[in-house]
Amino acid sequence: MSRPTTRLCTSTADDVFVRGKSLTRELIGELTFTEAMFFQILGRVPGPAETQMLDACLVTLMEHGLTPTAITARMTYTSAPESMQGAVAAGLASVGSLYVGTMEGCAHLLRRIVRAESPQAEAAAIVAEHREAGARVPGFGHPVHRPDDPRSIKLFELARSLGIAGSHVEAIELLSATIDRESGKHVTINATGAIAAVLSDCDVPAEILRGFALISRCAGLVGHIREEQVEPAMHAMWHGAESAVRHE
Amino acid sequence: MSRPTTRLCTSTADDVFVRGKSLTRELIGELTFTEAMFFQILGRVPGPAETQMLDACLVTLMEHGLTPTAITARMTYTSAPESMQGAVAAGLASVGSLYVGTMEGCAHLLRRIVRAESPQAEAAAIVAEHREAGARVPGFGHPVHRPDDPRSIKLFELARSLGIAGSHVEAIELLSATIDRESGKHVTINATGAIAAVLSDCDVPAEILRGFALISRCAGLVGHIREEQVEPAMHAMWHGAESAVRHE
Amino acid sequence: MSRPTTRLCTSTADDVFVRGKSLTRELIGELTFTEAMFFQILGRVPGPAETQMLDACLVTLMEHGLTPTAITARMTYTSAPESMQGAVAAGLASVGSLYVGTMEGCAHLLRRIVRAESPQAEAAAIVAEHREAGARVPGFGHPVHRPDDPRSIKLFELARSLGIAGSHVEAIELLSATIDRESGKHVTINATGAIAAVLSDCDVPAEILRGFALISRCAGLVGHIREEQVEPAMHAMWHGAESAVRHE
Amino acid sequence: MSRPTTRLCTSTADDVFVRGKSLTRELIGELTFTEAMFFQILGRVPGPAETQMLDACLVTLMEHGLTPTAITARMTYTSAPESMQGAVAAGLASVGSLYVGTMEGCAHLLRRIVRAESPQAEAAAIVAEHREAGARVPGFGHPVHRPDDPRSIKLFELARSLGIAGSHVEAIELLSATIDRESGKHVTINATGAIAAVLSDCDVPAEILRGFALISRCAGLVGHIREEQVEPAMHAMWHGAESAVRHE
Repeated sequence: MSRPTTRLCTSTADDVFVRGKSLTRELIGELTFTEAMFFQILGRVPGPAETQMLDACLVTLMEHGLTPTAITARMTYTSAPESMQGAVAAGLASVGSLYVGTMEGCAHLLRRIVRAESPQAEAAAIVAEHREAGARVPGFGHPVHRPDDPRSIKLFELARSLGIAGSHVEAIELLSATIDRESGKHVTINATGAIAAVLSDCDVPAEILRGFALISRCAGLVGHIREEQVEPAMHAMWHGAESAVRHE
Repeated sequence: MSRPTTRLCTSTADDVFVRGKSLTRELIGELTFTEAMFFQILGRVPGPAETQMLDACLVTLMEHGLTPTAITARMTYTSAPESMQGAVAAGLASVGSLYVGTMEGCAHLLRRIVRAESPQAEAAAIVAEHREAGARVPGFGHPVHRPDDPRSIKLFELARSLGIAGSHVEAIELLSATIDRESGKHVTINATGAIAAVLSDCDVPAEILRGFALISRCAGLVGHIREEQVEPAMHAMWHGAESAVRHE
Repeated sequence: MSRPTTRLCTSTADDVFVRGKSLTRELIGELTFTEAMFFQILGRVPGPAETQMLDACLVTLMEHGLTPTAITARMTYTSAPESMQGAVAAGLASVGSLYVGTMEGCAHLLRRIVRAESPQAEAAAIVAEHREAGARVPGFGHPVHRPDDPRSIKLFELARSLGIAGSHVEAIELLSATIDRESGKHVTINATGAIAAVLSDCDVPAEILRGFALISRCAGLVGHIREEQVEPAMHAMWHGAESAVRHE
Repeated sequence: MSRPTTRLCTSTADDVFVRGKSLTRELIGELTFTEAMFFQILGRVPGPAETQMLDACLVTLMEHGLTPTAITARMTYTSAPESMQGAVAAGLASVGSLYVGTMEGCAHLLRRIVRAESPQAEAAAIVAEHREAGARVPGFGHPVHRPDDPRSIKLFELARSLGIAGSHVEAIELLSATIDRESGKHVTINATGAIAAVLSDCDVPAEILRGFALISRCAGLVGHIREEQVEPAMHAMWHGAESAVRHE
């Protein structure tokens, strides 16, 4: 078997090197955590605008209230307080297709539009495919935030003011206009759609987008575990969940 | 049962509020991810020096090479690529007592010293307790980084230059001097010890310290999953692990 | 580094061997799953009485209704249906100190009594230690099943009729009598206490007891996931849990 | 929201009821664990032949040596021994599409053949679809067990002698003959294919098949954790995995 290569980390007695940069001389105290994670994951230090854009996306995804993810982490923590890592892991296990899968799905569609000879025709084809399959276009629609998702508005504003907005933000606007025209009403561009667009314009590949959501939600979950430490809600949530179901 | 309260998140059609602050007007684009996670977890926006200190700690903990945590995440990802969240969760499950438990253990000891009437006597008592139990003092010793851990040196320098270094950094220096005197040689203050000290001086409670390690490692693991996507090492690692064990 | 040995599995083109036995000639169709897991974990095929006893314990632990473990698995499954394994894993993460830790704790105490010169004195010492620490003796007490846990009664009956009941069942009876005398009232021997006793009498080490609980709960969780597939309760439970907490 | 119903468990002070049966009078001591899990998951007590068939499948899937699943569980256990549940959970997270997904995929194909007007034509269509997509037919092929998988042979023998073998075993034989004819050579029916066929003939729905694999692997992992307790291999495996990758 040929030996694969890892380029992430080497160390000596004197230093640690992450992707070839000295941890103590070039990273600690020199990069923010956001810059460092971009470097770790994608192999290049982001520029200031990209960093602000990624910060904005991470802040957007971090906290969503008592979602299944948060409920799960809090219940697991109080059931097994010896293992905070288990509680965070259990919570993250639900950050899957239903919640963040749409981000990747949307990014793939935007890539198709950007690469198409006729973006208009590609957007129309995408809308037709989804209508035929009876499926929502990923990145669009929201049960509460109507007509517009305030987070998307903010992220697009920021992308423009930072000079990040490029072909993928254009593509989502085109896709949005196409959806609105075809459905005869305005459909929300939700936050996962907006994030797919702005991070694609930072050259983040669709395949790893979910990873940034996981990092951000991880921080959100630590906040829930901290709240569970100081004001435990597990037993009330358990009782509430149990009572919501008829037992036969 | 009395109803517990959550203060983390509420939302309206127009906005989302995290701990009472408007997500779109006060958080996205206004706080870095590091500031936002500190606010989410501890309930106050950190000052610039605290933010830089936390950034430095998160950058320090992020990447450690092909550790069990990283190997686990990469093996799980390639076995079940439908679930990146499962791979990250599996990896984080090993961020436990052996690796980051020492951070909490050290922070508890530093708190004892800070609160003691005689810090010197408390430090001596701590060293005696551990010697009697045949246990290493958490936060001290390192298999590779000798005589000193370059990350600890860097973190203490930064803590001093930022004006963060306070009673807990003093406490770990006192504990270190006590250990060296009692053992007759210099024992490394490792990175988890240094982080315990500097984050305690940012008023981060010992009980939630592991949470910051989890967030940081989560970013590190996403980097490993990305590398696994572009240069898969799973089968080589599997073969290497299997061959290292005799089968009877 | 000296090479450690694994004795669990080898294979050839023609067969697979588990702990030296031919999978196709000696295990499949020859052993029940319960016998096979005992053999896999402990290295010997159990006798018929031990098998029935272990079956009884596994059946006892399997299903407990909408506990945090089950709620977690169901929420995770519906959030990320692409990964049934993630849902089971998330559920199992909460099978920790609060729920099954007592089984191990109880088994350790029974071992102390069995090995003591004076079992009576050891039982008294154990009760005194726990009273002093303000802690419940693991394996004793139950919020619903009073004065007796019907599962414990059944398990002890079975242990006697199968000829399994030995020194550890005697030890838990002695411990129970001591607790009742010291507290002036009858305290329930709960199911985890009974299981600790009867499995210790099958020579199952305390250190691996939790493993059997995990296998049994795993089956219980698959039942919850199946029910979630045919009658989804996740959204009702989520709403119930969320509504049970005040949002500020 | 309409209240969903759970039918799995209710309890009183005197007893616990699982799907309406008394735990203490009808389940503990009356059903084996295999019978009880079938009842828990599918709602009916299996007959003796179905029980033996399920036992055989569970025994087949339990142990596969130092696979990524086992390596992961052992590394996680030794990194965080406070949480055996975390180690099992981490291991199970890799029981996904690559390893057991084929069982479900195969069961879906067998269902198509069983329900088709012309099973021959359906089998041919399935083979053509996979050839066109450049994909292996799930349930077929094995890197080591050639020309036949000894586990499959054994499971089919057992299914016949127990009177379980029915339309789905016929369907996999038809599919196998079609594959062999089209590819001009004999392709192995692997163990996941055989299990898909025989459990489908026990009326186990394809959608929950993976659940039985998870239960069985859970037992296998507890065996690995036990071996790790008595003969730790983690550090050797870590070193082996790390050395198998070039570090740049």
